[in-house]
Amino acid sequence: MLYLIGLGLGDEKDISVKGLEIIRQCQSVYLEAYTSILYVSKEKLEAFYGRSITLVNREKVECDGNMLLQEAREMNVALLVVGDPLSATTHVDLLLRARRENIPTQIVHNASIMTAIGAVGLQLYNFGQTVSLVFFTETWKPNSIYFKIKENRDLGLHTLILLDLHVQEPLFESYIKGKKIYEEPRFMSISHAISQLLELESLCHEKVYDESTLAVGVSRMGFSTEKIVAGSLKQLASVDFGPPLHSLILFGNKIHILEIEYVREFALDVKIFDSLAQQQFPFLYKT
Amino acid sequence: MLYLIGLGLGDEKDISVKGLEIIRQCQSVYLEAYTSILYVSKEKLEAFYGRSITLVNREKVECDGNMLLQEAREMNVALLVVGDPLSATTHVDLLLRARRENIPTQIVHNASIMTAIGAVGLQLYNFGQTVSLVFFTETWKPNSIYFKIKENRDLGLHTLILLDLHVQEPLFESYIKGKKIYEEPRFMSISHAISQLLELESLCHEKVYDESTLAVGVSRMGFSTEKIVAGSLKQLASVDFGPPLHSLILFGNKIHILEIEYVREFALDVKIFDSLAQQQFPFLYKT
Repeated sequence: MLYLIGLGLGDEKDISVKGLEIIRQCQSVYLEAYTSILYVSKEKLEAFYGRSITLVNREKVECDGNMLLQEAREMNVALLVVGDPLSATTHVDLLLRARRENIPTQIVHNASIMTAIGAVGLQLYNFGQTVSLVFFTETWKPNSIYFKIKENRDLGLHTLILLDLHVQEPLFESYIKGKKIYEEPRFMSISHAISQLLELESLCHEKVYDESTLAVGVSRMGFSTEKIVAGSLKQLASVDFGPPLHSLILFGNKIHILEIEYVREFALDVKIFDSLAQQQFPFLYKT
Repeated sequence: MLYLIGLGLGDEKDISVKGLEIIRQCQSVYLEAYTSILYVSKEKLEAFYGRSITLVNREKVECDGNMLLQEAREMNVALLVVGDPLSATTHVDLLLRARRENIPTQIVHNASIMTAIGAVGLQLYNFGQTVSLVFFTETWKPNSIYFKIKENRDLGLHTLILLDLHVQEPLFESYIKGKKIYEEPRFMSISHAISQLLELESLCHEKVYDESTLAVGVSRMGFSTEKIVAGSLKQLASVDFGPPLHSLILFGNKIHILEIEYVREFALDVKIFDSLAQQQFPFLYKT
């Protein structure tokens, strides 16, 4: 049996009671550690779960998934995933292979950034497609995200922007040399994300957003040190959001007055926020 | 202190370990029972949590929220919410009032249908705005949902359609008579939803979908009796999805081949599914 168990967003105690009971019945426990990060160490998880845990990287799951499936034919195997287990393609692929090999599977859901983001006070119904912003290189600056944000904003919908993280990624050059060397883990900050987004605007210039566009920055959502700040992109670019993970939300202009009132509680500067909100969403303030 | 604690999607054991520890430290525990439903009884929850639970309805939270806040000034109060606590506006409003009265609050996130839906094999990134379908009456058939689905489909995005539930709603006529009488709880089935959606198509006729449009029906997502079936709207209308809650997903045409392959595993009739998928997403099958 193969269990995919979501760990939620924070520490070792965000697992569900059901998930914990299952882990304690498993002979083999893996932790997927590349699509998100946990805020506690593997050792702390092991102590709490009473099980030893093997870290697996992207290659292990995507290429050596067979090993996991092989084990799951004979014993109870758990693959632990930060957040909800099915936000990343990799796991769907693994489940599909399990189904085809008649290996029973069970998913234990948990909180995900995609819904926890409701904590900033924006309605989940008012979000359009979620997008991911990758680290640009000198030669690679994909603009598809820009046009997806445009699609959302044209419909008046909010956009959740998830920021890139590189954990245990082999360096491209090392592939050529035939021996994989892994780069240092790195995580995109909100400040870095904003500079990339503004660069895209200057490259595509369809006036989707600018420095004065109101947004909310969030770091470590769901964890005890969670930080939420609202302001213009220019303002947020200079806020220190601390350790990863960071996310950014651009407002859609169908925003409801109750949403604005709640988000306003997180404003870096209430006066500036009010003034920008009145410019960007004048219909909310008509009397 | 006011805690908003998500219970997740299934039974008493879907709460997080953190959430459970908090409940056991609370002097007063409420269960919000109108934006979703649990698959276990209040008594079972009480036995597992070791706390007596007071059911609250919409009026209680929206109108009498003051009572909850009054208590939260002096003791630890938990409001339990099925799914993630912040999917419904009501709770944002309550949190906002708490903030303004300087009552500390904490949110304990959990799984929500909005992300658990990834279990059907569709990528969360490929979903547009989530929509809700309400029970039509003779004189009230709001078509805004139709145009939101159109917006998603025009962008090639999937649409998650949440179906109405009425729990402890006072009857409209009873307001007039001055004494509130509550209607029987009722839940929209997938079959009922499809008939309403097709009615909207015949009223608005913008060719957003028709009987042959491929979709996935899901009931009791995240619970042990979860049921997932893929097929045309016409096919799904005659499937018995059993007890509530039901949800429906329409595919966007940006669907990826891996998504189709996974969803196909749930097809009511694989031959019909393949034939419709080849008509509706021909680009996936080009060689």
